[in-house]
Amino acid sequence: MSPHTPPLSRRLDGLQSSAIRDLLKLTSRPDIVSLAGGLPDEQLMPRDAIARAAESALADPSRLQYTESAGWGPLREVLASRESVRLGRPVPVEEIFVTHGSQQALSLLGEVLLDPGALVVVEDPAYVGALQVFRAAGARIVAIPLDSDGMRVDALAELLERGERPALVHTVSNFHNPRGVTLIPRRRRELAALAERYGFWVVEDDPYGELWFDRPAPQAVASYSPNVIRLSSASKILAPTLRVGWMIAPNAVCRGVELLKQGADLCGSALTQQIAADLLADEPWLGAHLDKVRGIYGERATALVNAVRTRFGDRVVSTDAAGGMFVWLDFTDGTDTVELLPRAIDHGVAYVPGSAFAVSQPYRGSMRLCFTTSDAATLEHAVDRLFAAAE
Amino acid sequence: MSPHTPPLSRRLDGLQSSAIRDLLKLTSRPDIVSLAGGLPDEQLMPRDAIARAAESALADPSRLQYTESAGWGPLREVLASRESVRLGRPVPVEEIFVTHGSQQALSLLGEVLLDPGALVVVEDPAYVGALQVFRAAGARIVAIPLDSDGMRVDALAELLERGERPALVHTVSNFHNPRGVTLIPRRRRELAALAERYGFWVVEDDPYGELWFDRPAPQAVASYSPNVIRLSSASKILAPTLRVGWMIAPNAVCRGVELLKQGADLCGSALTQQIAADLLADEPWLGAHLDKVRGIYGERATALVNAVRTRFGDRVVSTDAAGGMFVWLDFTDGTDTVELLPRAIDHGVAYVPGSAFAVSQPYRGSMRLCFTTSDAATLEHAVDRLFAAAE
Repeated sequence: MSPHTPPLSRRLDGLQSSAIRDLLKLTSRPDIVSLAGGLPDEQLMPRDAIARAAESALADPSRLQYTESAGWGPLREVLASRESVRLGRPVPVEEIFVTHGSQQALSLLGEVLLDPGALVVVEDPAYVGALQVFRAAGARIVAIPLDSDGMRVDALAELLERGERPALVHTVSNFHNPRGVTLIPRRRRELAALAERYGFWVVEDDPYGELWFDRPAPQAVASYSPNVIRLSSASKILAPTLRVGWMIAPNAVCRGVELLKQGADLCGSALTQQIAADLLADEPWLGAHLDKVRGIYGERATALVNAVRTRFGDRVVSTDAAGGMFVWLDFTDGTDTVELLPRAIDHGVAYVPGSAFAVSQPYRGSMRLCFTTSDAATLEHAVDRLFAAAE
Repeated sequence: MSPHTPPLSRRLDGLQSSAIRDLLKLTSRPDIVSLAGGLPDEQLMPRDAIARAAESALADPSRLQYTESAGWGPLREVLASRESVRLGRPVPVEEIFVTHGSQQALSLLGEVLLDPGALVVVEDPAYVGALQVFRAAGARIVAIPLDSDGMRVDALAELLERGERPALVHTVSNFHNPRGVTLIPRRRRELAALAERYGFWVVEDDPYGELWFDRPAPQAVASYSPNVIRLSSASKILAPTLRVGWMIAPNAVCRGVELLKQGADLCGSALTQQIAADLLADEPWLGAHLDKVRGIYGERATALVNAVRTRFGDRVVSTDAAGGMFVWLDFTDGTDTVELLPRAIDHGVAYVPGSAFAVSQPYRGSMRLCFTTSDAATLEHAVDRLFAAAE
């Protein structure tokens, strides 16, 4: 740029591209099996059903027009009905807000719920997209560790007893990204009770809840308290291209989000929102579709976890393959996954080092593996390569 | 909400829903002819071409997946090629960034270019969506009047000579919303020269430039300086449901916007972006489509302006019907358009009072009329009703 080029804002200082995204660029070589991604399998997305719904939507000229900022009415009704079942209470349409993927819900909530300097509690390791939002909001971030039962709610209780007063606690409640674990019911009740006792918001970020393998995910955290704002998405169960996410939140929160959505991008697409509405409303079709996706992802997850356990034995502790898209490995033999990565890529396999998701702990002995986009044989092959690289 | 409900952020204090949107809700009664809207005519949107492009896009499973934050590659290439012609220089793909409508471009630019307290110069009356963005960014806003030749660049020059140092100047260069006017070429050159001399950004917000009636809009402001960031959109020429807008900006600006787009909503829709790419790339089809839209909008605009001039004579000064979607009326007889509105609605016609777009001046004697969604006879009828209400 020329010497007369005006400056950019200070907001950009220190803001970095997501480590995962940068890594994805490196590992698109065809000779590399990448377990580093975080994408659902496009081959399992319901292309024919989407095409039929698109044709049906485009029969009506009004689907080409701007739509309501809060979302196309009939989609909000379908979501209200589905979420009423999930939350065990009638959810009014006013408490449903459709966003451009659930990332936008997070981003708008960051503005609606957080003043600069507000305390936000996240999980460690954390969903990187949430960290980006909370950092952009100028929040002070404190991390609570996860164990195999999800967020250590006892550690949150200690933090509160020490006098810390969060404005918001963020949790990926089901099949955590990156940690693979699910918050157990007792802790859900405890978390909701703490939210009411200390007056903070919980954001229950749940894009993966429908992707369970053996048994459904536990009752939603949001079923225990109106202080819990629930987020979900069509990206992992239908297709990311729809850019349809949603939040279930008290009316005042939805109205705040609505004001900001108008400034952010006016509204979503009535076309893709009708596609989502048609597919989510067709219960028999959706049930069969989800059964198929669960079956295939479940097989892949099992193949990956079994291969890891067979190859690495007690050198690695792996999460179980219970749902979602990710397996998390902790090396017990001192392996440094950041140092291992270039060697792994030389051997034709990629993953995301745990440090990419780290908040307080370094997670240098951990890695995230994504099992969604490779078949069982490829996953086993990838584990062989990883083992060879780690020797 | 219960007494234990956590608070919302202070950011919401004083933030109001757009007056235009609230008004639109009131005027959807079938007995009211609303000239208050700001929507393109959905009957003129190319539904069949969009349906064909959607079918073609959905033949490829990768169109269902997440896409690049900066936009689907082939759409950026089509836009780079079109904008190269418009700007009279080769525009590299790296300088094209696709957003969720051009409102999102404005919103992300607000974050990338503005520190809190930065001075932003807008036009008076102003595009309300831009005001929302600049207020949300914590900018100090100063307004420059418009006349029939567009922004009073001489008034901006005076402001600069007095020592004011804006970070950004926003202009709707063609067929202004709400003012209907177009910035003349001499002032475009002067604005660009000031931007380089004083080192500020110009955002040339141009959703309406292709909707000219008698002769094409002047050469883009962005053709005169790299300090000018140009925004445009498919919403007014194809369909808002695609949610496709774009910006042409220096690489450093695009990379800053990319970082923020990841946190805001990850990426757009590869499906709607392919639809836009296919339609924008088909020059003969697009030319014929735009000719048709220009012809019909032009007839409507002429009918509206003629009816106003015939009915109101010298009680009203109206902009000419040169392009875009809006006509602006200034009453010369002391009519207060805020006071007139309930009477007009009683008479079955709605408009937006000038005060809804006001920044420094009150514009109590002005109104904005939208001519896009009514035929000539309806527009003439609406002016009869307005005249009866104003008597």
